[in-house]
Order: sequence, then structure tokens, then C-alpha cells
Amino acid sequence: MKRLFTVSAKHGQPPGTMVYTGQRTDEPTRITLIDYGPDAVVEKSDARLGDYAPCRESGTVSWINIDGLNDTAVMESVGNLFGIHPLVLEDILHTTQRPKLEDHADYLFLVVRMLYVPAGSSEVQSEQLSFILAKNCLVTFQERAGDVFDGVRDRIRNNHGRVRKMGADYLLYALMDAIIDNYFAIMETIGEKIEAIEQSMLENPDAVLLNQLYRMKRELLYIRKSTWPLREAVGGLERGESALLGKKTAPFLRDLYDHTIQVIDTVETFRDMLGGVQELYLSSMGQKTNQVMQVLTIIATIFIPLTFVAGIYGMNFEYMPELQWKYSYAAFWALILLLTLGMVVFFRRRKWF
Amino acid sequence: MKRLFTVSAKHGQPPGTMVYTGQRTDEPTRITLIDYGPDAVVEKSDARLGDYAPCRESGTVSWINIDGLNDTAVMESVGNLFGIHPLVLEDILHTTQRPKLEDHADYLFLVVRMLYVPAGSSEVQSEQLSFILAKNCLVTFQERAGDVFDGVRDRIRNNHGRVRKMGADYLLYALMDAIIDNYFAIMETIGEKIEAIEQSMLENPDAVLLNQLYRMKRELLYIRKSTWPLREAVGGLERGESALLGKKTAPFLRDLYDHTIQVIDTVETFRDMLGGVQELYLSSMGQKTNQVMQVLTIIATIFIPLTFVAGIYGMNFEYMPELQWKYSYAAFWALILLLTLGMVVFFRRRKWF
Amino acid sequence: MKRLFTVSAKHGQPPGTMVYTGQRTDEPTRITLIDYGPDAVVEKSDARLGDYAPCRESGTVSWINIDGLNDTAVMESVGNLFGIHPLVLEDILHTTQRPKLEDHADYLFLVVRMLYVPAGSSEVQSEQLSFILAKNCLVTFQERAGDVFDGVRDRIRNNHGRVRKMGADYLLYALMDAIIDNYFAIMETIGEKIEAIEQSMLENPDAVLLNQLYRMKRELLYIRKSTWPLREAVGGLERGESALLGKKTAPFLRDLYDHTIQVIDTVETFRDMLGGVQELYLSSMGQKTNQVMQVLTIIATIFIPLTFVAGIYGMNFEYMPELQWKYSYAAFWALILLLTLGMVVFFRRRKWF
Amino acid sequence: MKRLFTVSAKHGQPPGTMVYTGQRTDEPTRITLIDYGPDAVVEKSDARLGDYAPCRESGTVSWINIDGLNDTAVMESVGNLFGIHPLVLEDILHTTQRPKLEDHADYLFLVVRMLYVPAGSSEVQSEQLSFILAKNCLVTFQERAGDVFDGVRDRIRNNHGRVRKMGADYLLYALMDAIIDNYFAIMETIGEKIEAIEQSMLENPDAVLLNQLYRMKRELLYIRKSTWPLREAVGGLERGESALLGKKTAPFLRDLYDHTIQVIDTVETFRDMLGGVQELYLSSMGQKTNQVMQVLTIIATIFIPLTFVAGIYGMNFEYMPELQWKYSYAAFWALILLLTLGMVVFFRRRKWF
Amino acid sequence: MKRLFTVSAKHGQPPGTMVYTGQRTDEPTRITLIDYGPDAVVEKSDARLGDYAPCRESGTVSWINIDGLNDTAVMESVGNLFGIHPLVLEDILHTTQRPKLEDHADYLFLVVRMLYVPAGSSEVQSEQLSFILAKNCLVTFQERAGDVFDGVRDRIRNNHGRVRKMGADYLLYALMDAIIDNYFAIMETIGEKIEAIEQSMLENPDAVLLNQLYRMKRELLYIRKSTWPLREAVGGLERGESALLGKKTAPFLRDLYDHTIQVIDTVETFRDMLGGVQELYLSSMGQKTNQVMQVLTIIATIFIPLTFVAGIYGMNFEYMPELQWKYSYAAFWALILLLTLGMVVFFRRRKWF
Repeated sequence: MKRLFTVSAKHGQPPGTMVYTGQRTDEPTRITLIDYGPDAVVEKSDARLGDYAPCRESGTVSWINIDGLNDTAVMESVGNLFGIHPLVLEDILHTTQRPKLEDHADYLFLVVRMLYVPAGSSEVQSEQLSFILAKNCLVTFQERAGDVFDGVRDRIRNNHGRVRKMGADYLLYALMDAIIDNYFAIMETIGEKIEAIEQSMLENPDAVLLNQLYRMKRELLYIRKSTWPLREAVGGLERGESALLGKKTAPFLRDLYDHTIQVIDTVETFRDMLGGVQELYLSSMGQKTNQVMQVLTIIATIFIPLTFVAGIYGMNFEYMPELQWKYSYAAFWALILLLTLGMVVFFRRRKWF
Repeated sequence: MKRLFTVSAKHGQPPGTMVYTGQRTDEPTRITLIDYGPDAVVEKSDARLGDYAPCRESGTVSWINIDGLNDTAVMESVGNLFGIHPLVLEDILHTTQRPKLEDHADYLFLVVRMLYVPAGSSEVQSEQLSFILAKNCLVTFQERAGDVFDGVRDRIRNNHGRVRKMGADYLLYALMDAIIDNYFAIMETIGEKIEAIEQSMLENPDAVLLNQLYRMKRELLYIRKSTWPLREAVGGLERGESALLGKKTAPFLRDLYDHTIQVIDTVETFRDMLGGVQELYLSSMGQKTNQVMQVLTIIATIFIPLTFVAGIYGMNFEYMPELQWKYSYAAFWALILLLTLGMVVFFRRRKWF
Repeated sequence: MKRLFTVSAKHGQPPGTMVYTGQRTDEPTRITLIDYGPDAVVEKSDARLGDYAPCRESGTVSWINIDGLNDTAVMESVGNLFGIHPLVLEDILHTTQRPKLEDHADYLFLVVRMLYVPAGSSEVQSEQLSFILAKNCLVTFQERAGDVFDGVRDRIRNNHGRVRKMGADYLLYALMDAIIDNYFAIMETIGEKIEAIEQSMLENPDAVLLNQLYRMKRELLYIRKSTWPLREAVGGLERGESALLGKKTAPFLRDLYDHTIQVIDTVETFRDMLGGVQELYLSSMGQKTNQVMQVLTIIATIFIPLTFVAGIYGMNFEYMPELQWKYSYAAFWALILLLTLGMVVFFRRRKWF
Repeated sequence: MKRLFTVSAKHGQPPGTMVYTGQRTDEPTRITLIDYGPDAVVEKSDARLGDYAPCRESGTVSWINIDGLNDTAVMESVGNLFGIHPLVLEDILHTTQRPKLEDHADYLFLVVRMLYVPAGSSEVQSEQLSFILAKNCLVTFQERAGDVFDGVRDRIRNNHGRVRKMGADYLLYALMDAIIDNYFAIMETIGEKIEAIEQSMLENPDAVLLNQLYRMKRELLYIRKSTWPLREAVGGLERGESALLGKKTAPFLRDLYDHTIQVIDTVETFRDMLGGVQELYLSSMGQKTNQVMQVLTIIATIFIPLTFVAGIYGMNFEYMPELQWKYSYAAFWALILLLTLGMVVFFRRRKWF
Repeated sequence: MKRLFTVSAKHGQPPGTMVYTGQRTDEPTRITLIDYGPDAVVEKSDARLGDYAPCRESGTVSWINIDGLNDTAVMESVGNLFGIHPLVLEDILHTTQRPKLEDHADYLFLVVRMLYVPAGSSEVQSEQLSFILAKNCLVTFQERAGDVFDGVRDRIRNNHGRVRKMGADYLLYALMDAIIDNYFAIMETIGEKIEAIEQSMLENPDAVLLNQLYRMKRELLYIRKSTWPLREAVGGLERGESALLGKKTAPFLRDLYDHTIQVIDTVETFRDMLGGVQELYLSSMGQKTNQVMQVLTIIATIFIPLTFVAGIYGMNFEYMPELQWKYSYAAFWALILLLTLGMVVFFRRRKWF
């Protein structure tokens, strides 16, 4: 089972130390550059930072995407290019950050977590994604290759939608929107699993489901850790106090905030549902124990006294007057019937069956 | 069982894409127009948007109601007529929004959920209802035909109450009031069900009720998802910061807000009640198990030793002096009585019966 | 059991419709007028509103009390006399309001709930009480005759305390104080019941108490619904932003607010106590089940093997060497003793008795 | 068990009625006066209020302590001397107030609860303590003789610490500090009891502890009622908005506030601990029931079939071929062994022992 | 088990009394001085306060570390040197403070708790750490020798990182950062233990784990007491309202605050996880009881009636017609088989196996 805590371990190192602390230490660092304006797109799929000309001054928007965070040299040049504070670089490399937004006048720093389900697994994993939004530029840092941005890339290439007509702030929005959309997709999968568990539980509360229930709760705990602080971070974007966030992008950011709230709402609803399912399970369990107990008690309470009576007349005392009496056996059966009837009446009154 | 999560799935589509994502994809789009002032009412039951002349400048109030959200062309013309932001149109079409209020200077955008119980079902369903309030105009978007507004329509036609004398903001209030009133009606049905469950539980805690209890909790979870955000949205109306909300309508909006709070209060009280019923159920269950256990234990504890004694004298050893003794059988019965009495005293002291 | 939800049902009626929706539809409407100043008291016990001269301009304070809310005509004349908004009148008649305070410049509108225990019942009931505080005037609306204000009336008649020397705002305070005092009295009764349950639970956790516990929790839920919103309403009075609330009355309103907080505190403490009692009950139940199980297990575990041994020697095989052996029976008893002793040692080690 | 609710019962009396409503109605009223400055101390142990000269104008600090609240005349003269509002006097006499601070311009009114453990009891009791802080004067009202202020008195007499050099506000602080210190002392006792319960629970979860646990929770509920509102009251002192609270005393009041928070923290931690102990208890109980059940089931499941087999060969049918067969008895034992072994394997697989 | 409450006991002593109240009363007081600037470091490992020249006016930063708080004389000279308020000195010596930040114009006073795991123990302990930040100076007070600051010392000595170039406020940050980093390290250990428990629980819910679970929860309660107030204290630093906190240090303090939030987040996640594990445990326990009950009931319900039948034919009545009938025994077996089959069908229908 994946770890829920993952605390960054950088004991004894001075603050601002640039060492990647995540798990993807063998991932090669690859830089991709997409430079676009309303009229043209230039794409360099294996770019170097040197290719990144002083485009901050040009009118086009540059999206620099960096996959793999092992190459400290690359990180340092990015830092120099944009004048990024060492602590921000450290946060990018220590990939256990809570989602947050920091406004450093010249640039905005946004950290979020991107969820994904690795092939061959059914467990949701997450990866830290950092954004540096500067004038006309957006730099994205990913721990590994592979993301949820292909839709946005297509839209840029094909001039679909309004992305080419807007600035770097809109690009940030579009990418965040893709991430949140992906949250919804993952939510949908989880929702289906929960409803499947719920259905099974209602039909036949069974033992196998208990672990599933637990794992699902843990899954939600995991997602919740990523989504709750997101509210604050995206809320910061929505308030849009930075000059880097244009007025035209504002309604989109508000929409993004609404979606974030909706994701959190859904996580909480799921938790409530799982809580309800668990309560149902416990109640059903208790009920079943009760029924089992009742059957046992009815059987035992009826037969134990009868067996005792039979035992009595199985005794070998020489002087047992009943044994010689001709109608004893018939009388015995009468007694048995009477006792049984009495028990049945007793249980009926107590509404046991 | 209906889904609780329903997340909008629009993966990979650019923001502002206008495609209806709800379940009513076969619903035809029908536009109804009611144009009224203090003196006259004009009603077009199968109107087109072209019929909608520049009434914004006239002194009358126009209520354009659109049932069915499949016709993207219609949506686009509405958008053009009122200068509605594409994201707002998207929100209208993606019918899984949280209730919310957005102030876009020229118009107010309000999304709420209307509850209804489909014929032949006992489960509450909900439908997204969107309002665009512009100057002298109110546009309402419904997923399907059929709503709770017939009372309002009658009042407009018959000039009953004050609706004809007031503006479009009052119309918005009147419709919202009808929706909230409908919440109360549904609350009443649920309340009756809960009290029926409660009554049964107090009289005879039974197995069948457990699922009912669970379904009722789920129902409330569903309603709660629609009502909690309503507080914020209606609260926004009540504060009335928009110029579109006249001063004369303010006390009505305050009243609406009070009713919304009352609905939320009732949902919470219902949840508390269900929680109490469930606790009662669990306690009763535990108590019943206890009683069953006691009966079993009393019977078993009394008869098991007796059966053992009977078993002893059923043994076939050749040398068992007691068997030949003449008063053995009488002594056996004396022993049995003594043992039984001892047990009874023991249980009495432990207050088991 | 009384209903906890009581939602107002006024489906399809326009807002501001004046129809009484409570249960007391057969209550005759009776108006009582007390007009007093420092020097004189005039009391009309079966007054009409016509008797209510333009006393607003006189220096005396008029207290108009209306019992029974069925006579719409009376309500309308009151509305006209004081220029009351139709929605306020509707709130007065729809007697399922949450306690609240509304400041309508010319008058204050305050709704609270008055608790009472009907004769021959032990269940707390509540009745809506509405106040209209205008200049020199206080109008009170009650669903039924009979209230907790006799003390205040006596003080006015006998010029006891300071009520005659103060204005209408002090009268409002004095009446509210009587209502809150009555809350305390009802709290005291409930507190005694809870402590009685607690005492019984500690002495002998029993089945009969479970329903009592549940009813008490429900009772508190009911009172809580009336008291929580009271905090806000009385808090509004305490802040005293209206010109109708004089400076001299301010310390009294602060005192009233303190008392309200104390009532809410007490309700919460009672809920905590009931929660504690229920936990104690469940724990005791579990403990008792445990003890019962242990007794059963000890008895069964000792005697079942013994009975088996006895059963063996009750078999009728022709070739059973033990049966003929002379000391078999003695040996049998030795075996029995040994087995029993072994069991006892086993249970002692497990600390079962 | 002491009452947790204690609501003031003053039904029908006008507000501001001065009658002591506590339990100490036979306590004689005794006034003690300590008048001190940097250079001198005057102490009158059985003073009258007449002795209280116009010391408000002198430079010395006067501490008037009143034990016993039955003498209404004394209360009235105090009220006159300091111009105290009748409602404040009523609050002093109605000894069920929540801790609170009221700023009446000329004087501060502070109510707190002093905890004490009566001799011969282990239950914490509380007593209302009221302070009137006026210029150069502090009046304290206690329900009964005996308090936690002896340390402060000694420091005043012996000019120990800085109390003699400071004003009446510091005296208020010093007394409050003594009260809070006493809370800590009582906390320590409770903490020791809780840890004793915890230790016993871990070593041997037993029945006797259940009631202790419950009483401890109730005790904390009681203390909590006194401490939570204290936060607000002492917080009001700390903010020090009154002119009666000098600047030099401010850091001391901040310290006092820190201690109050620490007391509340400790109460909450204790509640968490008790909650944990109770959960542990319930889990242990469930575990024990489980073990008992397993033993019972193993024994019963092994021996019940064996007894049945023995029962068969105890039957008296004339034609039972096995009975005559020479090796039957040996075969019987073989069967028994086989069955037992089978059962043991079955239970081992289920990991029951 | 370590104490969770530890309340300071200073009954009867005047406020500001300087006596160490912690457990390390035999720790010798040792002063260490590190004086550094961009160019030089002077270190005195067994310094006296007299060595501390008027360095406040020099441009260098002085870090005075005091281990052991028994020497009241030392504390007093520190107090005089920096003009520290007696209550602050008292707080330093009474080592049960909640973490807090106090701004005394001339100096900042910060109290935190440093966690450590003593050698040979697995229980987390904590020690109070007090900081006095004055101009160019930082004084740290520790209860015992040994801390988590060796990394910072090395960086100062070797001019590694930026510590030598920054002021005393950065030193405060660096030390706090080391403390928070240490929290993470301890969190990691705890997280590993929790996941080990979780794993065991999922594989084989066992009895031994219950106490471990309880101890872990208690451990988290302990850490939580140290971390929650830390949020407020570090948040105070982050807001940086004091002139002693330079602008250049601000981003570092923001980072520190982020880390603090992350620690608190982790503690809460751990508590949620433990809660989940406990629920899983209880559910598993209930399930196991259920299974055990079912096995018992099946065995008992099948064999008890059979044994009764066998008992009947073991009776010694003289007139039992079945006994002589030749096919009785075969018929008996047929009956037995029939009964068994019936039972099996019955249980199958109830889905018991």
C-alpha cells in the first residue's frame, strides 16, 4: 500500500539546498518548449534552456515544460533566468509540498498535485507539479514524463478554442483546468467503486468487502490531502491580486475555483457515503449475529431440557417405578410435546420468530 | 439507487465548450415567453427567440423560459442577445453545478437545483435550474419540461398578488420562493417517513428498517448537497449588491434567505433524528442480543449439569453401588431440585431474571 | 410523539398571504390592552383595536396582546396601524419561524418560541410568539391564550420594580426575560429527569431506560431548535442598533443575552450528559454480555466433556473391558474430578473468575 | 453525585431582585478589609462597610472581601458606595453565572468560579467568585469563608513580591493568578487519577473501572463549564481596554491569559485521554468476548459430535449389529480420535488457537 | 508511560518567581557563545556571561546558548543584560509552556518544544526551548545538553550556506528550521510504525496490536499538544511585525510556516489513519465473532437434536415398541440423515456457509 505521509527528509542540510527528494531519481531531465502567439506556434520537443531567447520581451507566450527534476544544473539556470528565490527552487525539488500559491512580485509560484492511476494498478498515485508564471512565460516542473496536458497542447497547435489569443495566465488556467478535470475523472472511478461496494453491501454484507472499504477510505484520505489546500491556492488565483493575472482571465479562474470547490465537495460526500456504508455494515453484522444467536438459543433451549428428560429415563437405577409402567413411553412423548409447545409459545411472545 | 456524485465529464474539451452533459439528451428545446406589466400580459407558449424584441428597453418584464438544453444554437443566440460569458453558458449546460450566484455587472447568473419526485418512484430527484437576470428580463433554463412555477404563472395571468406591479427581480424572487416552498413540501414527505421509521423502531426494532434508514440518510445527503451551497447563493441575493435587485424586493429576498436557512436547519435536524434512530436501533439490538444470551445461558447452565448427572447413572459399570440402593432415584430427584434451586438463586443475585 | 419538523405548507400561495398555518385554528382572537405610565395604568381585557387611540404620541406605554391568530381582519388592521410589511404579517401567521430579529426602521420585529408543558403531558411543547416594538408601543402575538407574563402584568399593575418608569423597550425586555426564565424552569425539570436516568443507569443499567434516553435526546433536539437561533436574535437586541432601544435598557438586554447563552450552554451540557449516559449504557451492556458469556462458557466447558465421558460408559457394546473392572466407577469419578480441576485452573489463569 | 446544571430559579421576580439563590444560605456575612500601600498595611478582620472611609481618594489600595451573600443590606450598601447597577448585584447573588467580564466605565465586574475539593470528598466543587474593581479598590464576593488567597494575603502583609508596590488592578491579577494556579493543582489530581485508570486499563481491563471512567468524564464536563467562558473573560482583561487596568499590569494579564489557555488545553487533553481509554476499554472488551466465544466454540464443537456418537451406542435397540461386534469399542475410540483430530485441524486453519 | 499533562506547580509563590520547575534539576548550567560575522567566527565553548561584551553594538551576531536552567544567578544576569521582564524569565524556567511568541518591543520571546527520542526508548519526549531575539543577539535556553542544532553550528563554522551573511533573525530561523526538520524525522518514524500496524491489521487482526494502537494515539496526542500552538507562534514570526525581523528573512519565515502547517497536517492525517485502523480492527473483530458464532450455531443446531433422538432410544422403558422392531436402527439412521440434511438446507438458505 502506498505511503500516506511522505515527509521530506533533508536533515542537516542548509535551507535552500537543491536536491531532488522524490522517488523518480532515475528520470532523465527533458525540456520542451512551446512558443505561440495568435498567428504562429514554435515547438521544440527536446529543447535546451539556451533556446529560450529573451522571449519575455516578445509578444508571444512561452511554455517551458521540464520533466524529471534530477538535473540540478538545469534547475539553477531556470532560477537565474527568472530570478527565482532559492527556497522556491527547493520547494520545487522537495516534492512533498502542500498545494500552495506564492506571489513573488515578478512571478507567481504555484504547487499542486496531479493525480494519476499507474498502468496495472488500481491505486491512485500523485505527482507534484510546480508552476512558475512570469511575464509572457509559464514554466512547469513535473517529476516524470506523461501528464494530462495533451488536450491543451492540441488546442495550441490547432488554434482551437481561445488559448492562442490569450496570455500566459490563461495557459496557467488551461493547465490547471486540465488537472482539475482529471480529478473529476478519477473521482468518477472512485464513485463507481463506492457505489459497487454499497450495492454489494445492501445485497449481501460480506467479509471480503471490509478491506475494500478500508482501502477506499484511505484512498480518499490521500486525495483529500491533495485537494483541501488546493482550495486556498486556487482561491488565491481567483482573487487575482497579482498583475500577472489579467482581467480577461478572471472569469475563467472563478470557474476554476468553482470546480475546485466541487471536487472537495465530492470528496466529502464520498467520505460521508463510505461512513454510511460502514455503519450499515456494522449494523448488518450486529443484526446477523443476533439472528444466529436466536437460532442457536431457540434450538438449544428447546432440545437441552428434552435431552435431559431422555437422559433421566436412560438411567440404570433398579428402582425407577416409571420404567415398568406401561404408558410411560407415551407419557414421555406427551411431556416432550408439552415442553416444546411451551418453549414455542415463550419465544413467540418474545417475538423471536 | 440514484448516483450521488455525478461529476461532469468533459475531458479534453476546451473551457467554454457548449455541450449539454446531463441525462435529458432527448428532451426537445421549447421556449416560452411571458411578457407582462401592471396592465397587460402577453404569453407565447411556443416562442422563438426572434420573438424576443428589444423588450429590455420597454417598461414590461419578460420571462423567457427554456425547457430542454440540447439545442446549442438556441443557447448561442441567448448568449449573444444578453452578452453572456461562454463559461456561464457552459455552466448552464453542464448540469452538475453547485448552486451559486455570479454577478456579471450586466446580468446576474444564479444556479440552483429543483427537487422533484418522479411519478412511480419514491426517490427524490433533482434538476439544475439556471437563471439569467438582466434589466427587465429573466431567462430560466430547465433540463426538462415540468416545474413548480404554475402558481407564479397563474398569479401573473390573473394579476393576483403583487407580481405584476414589480420588476424582473421580484419575478426571480417569486420563482425562487416557489422552489424553496417545494423543498419544504419534499421535506414534509421525508419527515413523515422518518417519523414512521422512528415509530416502528420504538415499537419493534426490526431488520427490514435498516435498509430504509440507510436510504433515508443517503436521501438527506443528496438534498444536503443541493441546499448547503444555496445558503451562500441566496445570501448573495439578500445582500443585494447588484443594481439589478431593486430596493422594494429587498425584504422579500430577506424572507427567502430566512426560508433557505430554515430548509437547511430542517435537513440538519432530520440528520440528527436519523442518527438518534440509528443509535436507538444499535442499542436495542445490543439489548436484544443480551436478553437472548441470558435466556440461553440460564437454560444451558441449569440443564447441562443436570444432564451430566443423568448421564452418570446411565452408565453401565457393573459395580455402581448407587444403582442398587432403593432410594437412589428419589435422591437423584432431590439432587436435581437442589442444583436447580442453587442456579436460580445464583441468577437472581446477578439480576438476570 | 410530537413532530420535530413542522414545515410551513403554503404551496402555490403568493408571498405575503395572510392565513394562519398553525394548529390552533379554533382559538378565538382576543385583544388585551394595557396602557401605563409612571402614574397610571389602564387595562382593557377584551379590547378592540379601535380602542387603541393614537397613543403612540402620548407619553404612556401601550402593550397590546393578541391571543389567537385566526382573525385575518384583526391582523390586517394591526398591519395598517403600524405600517407593517405584509411579509412580517405572514411570518407572524406562519407559526414555524426560526427565532429572529428584524429591524424595519419604524418598528422592530422579533419572533421567539415560548416553551410550555401542557397539563397532563410530560412533553415540552412550543408556541410561536411575535413582538412588534414601535415607538411607545409593544404588540405581542400568541397562538393561544395563556402565557408566562403574569408576573410582568402584576408588576405593572402594582408598580413593582422599575417597569412603570421605563419605556416600551424595557417592556419587551421584561417579557423576554420572563420567557427565558421559563426556559430555565423547563431546563430544571429536564435536568432532574436526566439525573434520575443517570442514577438508575449507574445502579442498574436496564432495558426500560433506553426509550427514555431516546425521548430525552429528542426533547433536547426540539428545545435546541428554539434556542440556538435565539442567540442571534437576542444578540441583535443587545447590540441595540435601533433607535427604539433606549440606552437605559441596554444593561438589561446584555443581561438577557447572558441568560440566553446560559440556556444554550445548559442544553449543550445536557446533550453531553445524555451522550455520556448512553456510552455508559452501551459499555455496561457489553460488559454484562461478557459476564453472561463467561458464565455460559465456564459451565459448558466444564460439563460438556464430562457428559461425553459419562456418555461413553453408557454405551451398550458387549466388549467394553472397563465396565467389568471393579474400580471403574471410582476411576470414573477420579477422572471427572481431574478434568474439572484442570478446567478451573485454566479459567483462573485467564482471570475469568 | 453533584448537579451539573444548577439553573437559577427566580421565577416571577422582577429583574434586579436581590436575593441570594445559592446553597450557602446559612453562611454569615463577614467583611474583611485590607488597606495597603508601599509603606503600610492596615487589616480589619471583622470590618463593617462604615470602616471603609473615602479611601478611593487616598493613594492606598483597599481590598474588601465579603464572605457569605445572605445579608441583602450589606449588598445594598456596597451597591450604593460604588454605584453598582442592580443587575450586577443580582448577578453576584445569583451564583450560577457563567464566568464573564463586564466593563461599567466606573468599575469592572468580573465573575469566575473557584474550584475546591471539600474535605472528606473526592469530588470537585465550585463556588462563584465576583470581583468589583474600582479606582484604588477591589471588592471580592465569596459564597463561603475559605479561599485560595492566603498566599496573596501573606505577600501583602510581608511586602513580598511586587504586590504592595502596584495598584488594585495588580491585586485583581494576583487573586486571579491564585485561582488559576488552583485550577492547575486540581488538574494535577485529576490527571493522576486518569493515568491510574489508564494504567489499570492497560494491565487488566475490568468492570469496576467503568463507573470511575464515567465519573471522571462528568467531572471534566463540570470543570469545562467553568473554564471555557473564562477564556473570554480573562481575554477581556488581557486586551485591557479599561482605564482601570494600568499599563504596568498588562504583561501580567497576558501571562494570566496564557495560563487560562493552558488550563483549557489540559481539560481538552484530558477529555481526549479519557476518550482513548474508553475506546481501549471497549476494544479490549470486544476482544475478550471474542476469546471467550472461541474457547466455548472449540470445546462445544469438539465434544458435541463425540457425545452424539456415544449417545448412539447407548441406545437400546435390539438389533444393532455394531454392539455385538468384538472390536466395536476399539473402533469407537478410533472414530473419536479421528473426529477430534479433524476438528483441531479445522480450527488451526482458521487460526483460532 | 510518560505523563501527558505536566502542569506547572508553583502554588503560593508570587508571580515572576524564578525557580526551575522541570525534571532536569541536576543538569549543570553551561553557557556557549558563538560570535560570527561574514568574515570571522569566535566560539567559546565554556563561556561566562561576562565574556559577552557589549556585542549588541558591534556588527557581529552573537548566539548565546544556555544548557541547564538550574542556576538562578545566570538567569538573572541574562535578564539584566537584555532587560527581560520577570514573567518572561519565569516562563523560561517553568518548562510546561505552550509554544508561543511574545513581542516585547526590545526583544522577541519565543517558546517551542523540541522533540527527541531518548536512547534506549521508543517513546518521544519533549523539551522546552526558549529563544530571546534581541538586536544582533540570540539567546537560547535548553533544559539539557544535546540538541538538533549541530548542522547549523557546522554551517556557521564552515561558512556554508548563507547563515554567516545574515543577521540574528536568520539564525533564529535556521534553528527553528532544524527543530521543524526534526519533527519531520520523528514523524517519519511514527509513520512507519503506523503503517506496520496497519499492515499487520490487514493481514491478521490480532490482540497484541490493540495496546500498540493505543500508545500510538497517545503519542500523537502528545506531539499534537506541541505542534498546534506552534502554528500560531510561527505564524506570528511569518507576519513579521517586529523590527527585529528583517525583510530578507521574510521568505524563509514563510517557508518555515509552510513546514509547520505540513507537520500539523501530517499529525492530523496520522490521527485519521489510526482512527481508520481502529475502525478496521473493531469491524474485523465483529466479523470474527460472527464467524465463530456461526460455526458454533451450525454444529450445535445439527447435533443437539440428533443427540436428543439418540437419548430417546437410550431410555430404559420396558414398553418401547420401536426397540424390538427389527429395522429400527436403520430407521434411526435414516431419521438422522434426514434431520441433518434439513439443517444443512436451512443454513444454506440463510447463507451461513
